[in-house]
Amino acid sequence: MNFNQRLNIAIEHHHSLLCIGLDPDVVRLPASVRHDADAVYTFCHEIIAATHDVAVAYKPNIAFFEAMGVTGIETLMRLMHHTRQNIWILDAKRGDIGNTASAYAHAAFGHFHADAITLNPYMGGDTLEPFLTHADRGAFLLCRTSNPGSRDIQELRLADGRPLYLAVAELAAQQWNTNQNVGLVVGATQPDALKAVRTICPDLPFLLPGIGAQGGDLVEALNAGLDARRSGLLINASRSILYASNAEDYAHAARAEAIRTRDAINTIRDAR
Amino acid sequence: MNFNQRLNIAIEHHHSLLCIGLDPDVVRLPASVRHDADAVYTFCHEIIAATHDVAVAYKPNIAFFEAMGVTGIETLMRLMHHTRQNIWILDAKRGDIGNTASAYAHAAFGHFHADAITLNPYMGGDTLEPFLTHADRGAFLLCRTSNPGSRDIQELRLADGRPLYLAVAELAAQQWNTNQNVGLVVGATQPDALKAVRTICPDLPFLLPGIGAQGGDLVEALNAGLDARRSGLLINASRSILYASNAEDYAHAARAEAIRTRDAINTIRDAR
Repeated sequence: MNFNQRLNIAIEHHHSLLCIGLDPDVVRLPASVRHDADAVYTFCHEIIAATHDVAVAYKPNIAFFEAMGVTGIETLMRLMHHTRQNIWILDAKRGDIGNTASAYAHAAFGHFHADAITLNPYMGGDTLEPFLTHADRGAFLLCRTSNPGSRDIQELRLADGRPLYLAVAELAAQQWNTNQNVGLVVGATQPDALKAVRTICPDLPFLLPGIGAQGGDLVEALNAGLDARRSGLLINASRSILYASNAEDYAHAARAEAIRTRDAINTIRDAR
Repeated sequence: MNFNQRLNIAIEHHHSLLCIGLDPDVVRLPASVRHDADAVYTFCHEIIAATHDVAVAYKPNIAFFEAMGVTGIETLMRLMHHTRQNIWILDAKRGDIGNTASAYAHAAFGHFHADAITLNPYMGGDTLEPFLTHADRGAFLLCRTSNPGSRDIQELRLADGRPLYLAVAELAAQQWNTNQNVGLVVGATQPDALKAVRTICPDLPFLLPGIGAQGGDLVEALNAGLDARRSGLLINASRSILYASNAEDYAHAARAEAIRTRDAINTIRDAR
């Protein structure tokens, strides 16, 4: 089964579009786990145990684990190996030439057991191919991101009048999705951009950062981004869930916030 | 001292523009080291010991180490910590939002002790800033790469008629280089593109992949890319040096090939 089918089934099964971003910041861990010898593992593991029936996906950003050195990489591998009920998206934003991309794909899909990865499309189609050839694994390509600097390159006007990110969307839908395993990263903070990308890519799943700590409006984002089946989105929330409480009840608080976010999303879907 | 000054001094000191790409592929290691328990470390260490006075820089691509799992990351850290006579460029092509970019910068400059890193500019200036704020460390931004797919995005025509990669070059020179620590990655296989980028960026160092296994012509590349001081380039060679011999004499053969490449480059510089 190809990745986009797998994702649709998982969304139906969980009745959830919620993706939880695992970006553990050692200085923000609750005091009750901070001095645990294996604090980051314990923290993430408890968050996952409390939310795996609420979220459809987890998205660990590898940078936060790499920043802890070799131990961090090993922690991420253990987390991804031991928790397999959800879709795991390795947020790595990789992009490199053929034999190097193959090495990254081997690391992501072999060592980390990721179901999907985020990729940077700047180097072109041949740098995506070593990932896309794995039809059962997904690739979410950066399209229009939610950070202020995204306008520097992504919004440059092309000769045909379109901003660059719409050309990326078109390449994704028309050239790179032959295995039905391509998705796009589109920031929730720009509903107009999201709507324009959805028009070009009616069938692709979008991963939406920017809800919660980054301040995107949920109603506008969903109305702009949902596909014809009122699905096709993964709404990512990280800090609002991970740090819902910094006391001993952090996992319980994370679950409550995850349920609140999932239900807020489903209410908007149902009202559509 | 800022990075671009440091690099110029290192180039003068070594009288070399040669950068050796460390992309160890386990299946291509010489039989004499392949069964060493620490084969990749031994291989790279021997190559470095035989070439550190010939090359000005080393460029390990982190993908090849990540593909070996946790052990590979640990191997790369040991190599970078124990060999400090040269400029070390971590080829990682990172690019992510602010707090994530800070985590990557901490990993690259803190854990790996890299002197410079390669970055992907697609997400814009605020994603580069956490690296560029370290004035003594360098950032080589992907501009025009040497792979066939580079034309998919990098050569898209902008409204002003220029290809996208020239807009990236202009942003690099005019907006992002405030700490004199920005460089560009420009493929050696496209001398016309290289010449156009040099015109926009007379003072930036360029990292040139594509010589050797990728087949770029050295004379054309140097004539297009050298700056007014007949410098400003790092010419990267990987496989032609690493696998110059697959017998026991691999380090000796790597040294001979490194000297041949360095001297071929210097002859072209001197003839200019």
